Amino acid sequence: MKDKQEMCTVTFLPADKSIKIEKNSVLIKAARKAGLHINASCGGAGVCGKCRVLLERGKLKGGNSEKLSQEQYRDGHRQACTAEVIEDITIRIPEESGRQKGGLGTGIPLRHHARMHVFEINELKNAGIFYPPVDKLCIQLAKPGPHDNRADLGRLIQELADQQNKHRILTGLPVIKKIRRTLRENDFLVTVTLENPVNDKSKTHLLNIQPGKWDQRNFGIAVDIGTTTIYGVLIDLNSGKILGKDSCYNPQMSYGEDVIARIIYAEKPKGLAMMQELVVDAINRVISNILKKVASAKDSAHGAIKRDEINSITIAGNTTMTHLLLELEPDNIRRSPYVPVSTFFPPLQAADIKLKLPRHCVALLFPAISSYVGGDIVAGVMGSGMYRTDLLTLFIDVGTNAEIVIGNKEWLACAACSAGPAFEGGGITHGMRAVEGAISDFSLNPATLEPMNVTEGNKAPLGICGSGLLIIVATLFEHGVINQSGKFNDINTPRIRSGRSGMEYVLAWQDECAADHDIVLNEVDIDNFIRAKAAIFAGISTLLQQVGLQVSDLEQIILAGGFGSYIDLDSAMTVGLLPEVEPEKIVYVGNGSLMGAWMSELSNHIRKDVVKVVRKMTSFELSEVPAFTDQYVASIFLPHTDLSLFPKATARKASQQKKKEP
Amino acid sequence: MKDKQEMCTVTFLPADKSIKIEKNSVLIKAARKAGLHINASCGGAGVCGKCRVLLERGKLKGGNSEKLSQEQYRDGHRQACTAEVIEDITIRIPEESGRQKGGLGTGIPLRHHARMHVFEINELKNAGIFYPPVDKLCIQLAKPGPHDNRADLGRLIQELADQQNKHRILTGLPVIKKIRRTLRENDFLVTVTLENPVNDKSKTHLLNIQPGKWDQRNFGIAVDIGTTTIYGVLIDLNSGKILGKDSCYNPQMSYGEDVIARIIYAEKPKGLAMMQELVVDAINRVISNILKKVASAKDSAHGAIKRDEINSITIAGNTTMTHLLLELEPDNIRRSPYVPVSTFFPPLQAADIKLKLPRHCVALLFPAISSYVGGDIVAGVMGSGMYRTDLLTLFIDVGTNAEIVIGNKEWLACAACSAGPAFEGGGITHGMRAVEGAISDFSLNPATLEPMNVTEGNKAPLGICGSGLLIIVATLFEHGVINQSGKFNDINTPRIRSGRSGMEYVLAWQDECAADHDIVLNEVDIDNFIRAKAAIFAGISTLLQQVGLQVSDLEQIILAGGFGSYIDLDSAMTVGLLPEVEPEKIVYVGNGSLMGAWMSELSNHIRKDVVKVVRKMTSFELSEVPAFTDQYVASIFLPHTDLSLFPKATARKASQQKKKEP
Repeated sequence: MKDKQEMCTVTFLPADKSIKIEKNSVLIKAARKAGLHINASCGGAGVCGKCRVLLERGKLKGGNSEKLSQEQYRDGHRQACTAEVIEDITIRIPEESGRQKGGLGTGIPLRHHARMHVFEINELKNAGIFYPPVDKLCIQLAKPGPHDNRADLGRLIQELADQQNKHRILTGLPVIKKIRRTLRENDFLVTVTLENPVNDKSKTHLLNIQPGKWDQRNFGIAVDIGTTTIYGVLIDLNSGKILGKDSCYNPQMSYGEDVIARIIYAEKPKGLAMMQELVVDAINRVISNILKKVASAKDSAHGAIKRDEINSITIAGNTTMTHLLLELEPDNIRRSPYVPVSTFFPPLQAADIKLKLPRHCVALLFPAISSYVGGDIVAGVMGSGMYRTDLLTLFIDVGTNAEIVIGNKEWLACAACSAGPAFEGGGITHGMRAVEGAISDFSLNPATLEPMNVTEGNKAPLGICGSGLLIIVATLFEHGVINQSGKFNDINTPRIRSGRSGMEYVLAWQDECAADHDIVLNEVDIDNFIRAKAAIFAGISTLLQQVGLQVSDLEQIILAGGFGSYIDLDSAMTVGLLPEVEPEKIVYVGNGSLMGAWMSELSNHIRKDVVKVVRKMTSFELSEVPAFTDQYVASIFLPHTDLSLFPKATARKASQQKKKEP
Repeated sequence: MKDKQEMCTVTFLPADKSIKIEKNSVLIKAARKAGLHINASCGGAGVCGKCRVLLERGKLKGGNSEKLSQEQYRDGHRQACTAEVIEDITIRIPEESGRQKGGLGTGIPLRHHARMHVFEINELKNAGIFYPPVDKLCIQLAKPGPHDNRADLGRLIQELADQQNKHRILTGLPVIKKIRRTLRENDFLVTVTLENPVNDKSKTHLLNIQPGKWDQRNFGIAVDIGTTTIYGVLIDLNSGKILGKDSCYNPQMSYGEDVIARIIYAEKPKGLAMMQELVVDAINRVISNILKKVASAKDSAHGAIKRDEINSITIAGNTTMTHLLLELEPDNIRRSPYVPVSTFFPPLQAADIKLKLPRHCVALLFPAISSYVGGDIVAGVMGSGMYRTDLLTLFIDVGTNAEIVIGNKEWLACAACSAGPAFEGGGITHGMRAVEGAISDFSLNPATLEPMNVTEGNKAPLGICGSGLLIIVATLFEHGVINQSGKFNDINTPRIRSGRSGMEYVLAWQDECAADHDIVLNEVDIDNFIRAKAAIFAGISTLLQQVGLQVSDLEQIILAGGFGSYIDLDSAMTVGLLPEVEPEKIVYVGNGSLMGAWMSELSNHIRKDVVKVVRKMTSFELSEVPAFTDQYVASIFLPHTDLSLFPKATARKASQQKKKEP
């Protein structure tokens, strides 16, 4: 879904490494991508002055600062953290920036992100399952006469059978009330909106009828209600294409960051109604924004699209989000034995849940598995194609809660584990969300332990986000700065010191960053991180154990969720967050929940299959499985007590250590 | 459904005829029943003094008047028109009352009404088709625990499958919203209300859920919306028994007597909404009245029944009444080619049509065949069992419009013909509805042509109702007072005179009746009557002809509608209204529409079968069949141009004529 961007080639000397990077990237990111360390504490604020490089060929945009003299600038010196790549260039990294006190060559690890799974509409079309839940059909009816006085509705239904092979049609009073006028408004040429049957036993619902030809306009909406963010896309149901998208924070956030806090709020008088109102308003706003964007877009093939032309909406969200949307009392979700009101939901009218969509618009909700494996995960399993693959797959959506699904088209098992908010920047002294100023990548000068902080938006560092935390912990561990228990080794450097919560590593000094304090990572933070990753790894191990399999049996890992896209796979295996498999087995699907909702708008087969998938999926309540505790205890080490599970990470660490030896 | 009444034996001398009659009947009716003529113009007002009889044994109540001296009364003389039978008695009819100028013996025709079809619930039960559309089931669910944390809804649905063999259950948001509290209110003992599937492909709808045991209380309503009267019954869906009933005039009457007038009104601004409001209010009132009656009845097995306990309502009415109920524009019903909006209607929620019934209550509407063969007729065909008989049957509902159905369980053909309002007392100079004072039976003293008028409520005559009109015309024709064309023969009697609309027969002089004029029947009235009966007979003949059959093929005639119960079968054949068949082939089903609605509340099989019946039924638009005009022209004679169709009536008439000869 990404727009194509212009790429530039950056060649770094003396290492003679070339990489391609998107135009307008800052140089420090290009270096990071090339696997080259540049000391850079201030992350782009241009204040520490340590990231000076020399432009040997081509032009850069920016990169000047008060740390450089006019003469230096003229000679080609630039600050790597503020210089933007705008064309093909050659850059030399001087000794004092790239290496310090005993050169280390270019050796910092490259980042391996999971390859992105791109969903192709043509796959559906070629498989013959491009079949949206709602169709529009234009039909010319025979006109009544002395020898044909069939009733208006009977006439329509019979001709839909005769001309279009549509049978077993059911309709409601609103259509019956308008059919007389509609048939006669355009001389018995009408367009019908039909909700296609999910299976052979279902009926086709005649949702709406319009005078004249309107079958070229049939639109749907897919929505993911995340605990944090609500995403929506507008889909042309004839072509399958996405015509517009929008997102907003889930406004329930003001009443609680996580699902438990929201449930507690919903238990207050009028709290549930308020929670519903907030999410419904937000969805309505997202839809409005999309329609506005489409209306103002110059290249829109459809011109402005009216609300009335939206015939279906598919919504996916976790079990709590779905309960709040439907105004179902969620209190038992948070109390043992964690019984939700319902895990499946009949097709609704969008108006039933106060969505500002036409009366005839169908609202479809993804079913859940349990209180903590929700419709978002089911949507991810559907959207990623896991439910129809032969490959033994681990699907994992990492957030505050990590949901894990293991299986393939034959069988599926799932569980949820509470990782805590570490991966979203919570529960860490200087943790933050992945917004501007968050340290999201990092490398270490092994000799000096000076950091290279790469921040979101190339701003002065403000804190550490989830993906940064993972890399920092992995890097500190690989370089022997911390030990297997996450405690600092006794190393003499100003970057490591004793703080309020045990020992800590200073990522950025106060004068180099945007915070009013040094940015540090301490032992309590590291402990929180280890517990979070241990919960996830123990969940994966326990679930594998329950189904009698081992990590080595896994043929594919699917990562979903916002965090998944930024995970550096080597780091994730170094710390023991993900099981160690070949990186090419790992695929990232992005927002699996939104993708599943989108696919459901394109293929009614998803609606049919999801019923089977949900029935097939065995849910394990990890707190009820005694082995889980053992697995957890074994996992609260870096990477694990059983190092044989992580041979490559172990080897990588050993090689780093070896380099350090004189 | 009639209460049993005490019967008394009345013996008439000198004829020595005994009959049994209900206690409190007036004597003149007893004479009529015995086939004895008593001159009685004033119909019970006690003013003409011609009906004097002698009480020879036993007691009578009343029967005195200023026409009798005290001595005469003491001697046993009584006015037959005001004397009520209260015990077994013997009565002598004196020469001057019973016969006049040349005694004629006792010979006036007995009345033959069709035998009443009584519907037996046990028939349904024995046939295994007692299966109401809505069931209630009480079920104890397993309680949630650490090893059973199924969702509330899933738990219920699964246990309904396991414990009660109920599968494919569908429910809506209202039930899902209340299930959490309901399950826990009575420790997971709940009662569900289920709408049973109509066929194997349908789902079972979970309509409602209540805490605790309530399966013993399951009630339904059946309603017939007549153009004139709305009838409702309350049914115990567990036993099938009717618990109460009520009726009221259709308040739309104020805006038009017949369907055409109502359609015209509905075409005015806000007219349609007004028509709907009127009928809905009336149904709501009927339901309220029934519930009030049940609540105040001492012998009620169920105590008071709340609206909330009514789970289904089945409604039958003609096509226009159904359109007005659903607020569907009925205008094309009255315009060629007579296209209704719809002839079938999906199951609705009672609240969709503003009925004051619980949200979960299902509203089922009988489907129609065409603009003029409506759901009332379909209900009659279902309720009378015509659709599953082997006998070749003619079903006929006579009113302003006569609807005719011919066929059996294999095939069905139907048509409607406009008879005009004659059978309901309309379009006749002194016509009236069958209310107090309406002449409803009649005989003639062949010698003097003096009448015996029997009125509704034994009041002084006020006019002639439909059943009276039939008998009067038949009697005048049989006695040669009018000829085959309905014109008066040249007979010298004060009762026959020239009036404003041709010749006329005086039924009651002004001083003998409650009207401020003589009550007469003139040649224009007779012509109207003949045209009405001709339309019906031509309809029957044409429909028979269309399906290649003859009157002699008919094995059964079913009469439905208010008029049918009062039809004297001999008179109906004498005038050529009904085809001449053996009287025992004729059965009266009363309000077939209400009976069909009631049966539908008792057996979901009716709902299933009605779809097939409607598909099977071929509708003929008589105005489009050329033969209809020929049949009509042949029928505008008494009884018909082809006397071979009415051999018995012809013989009867000949025998009457013979008696007259000296």
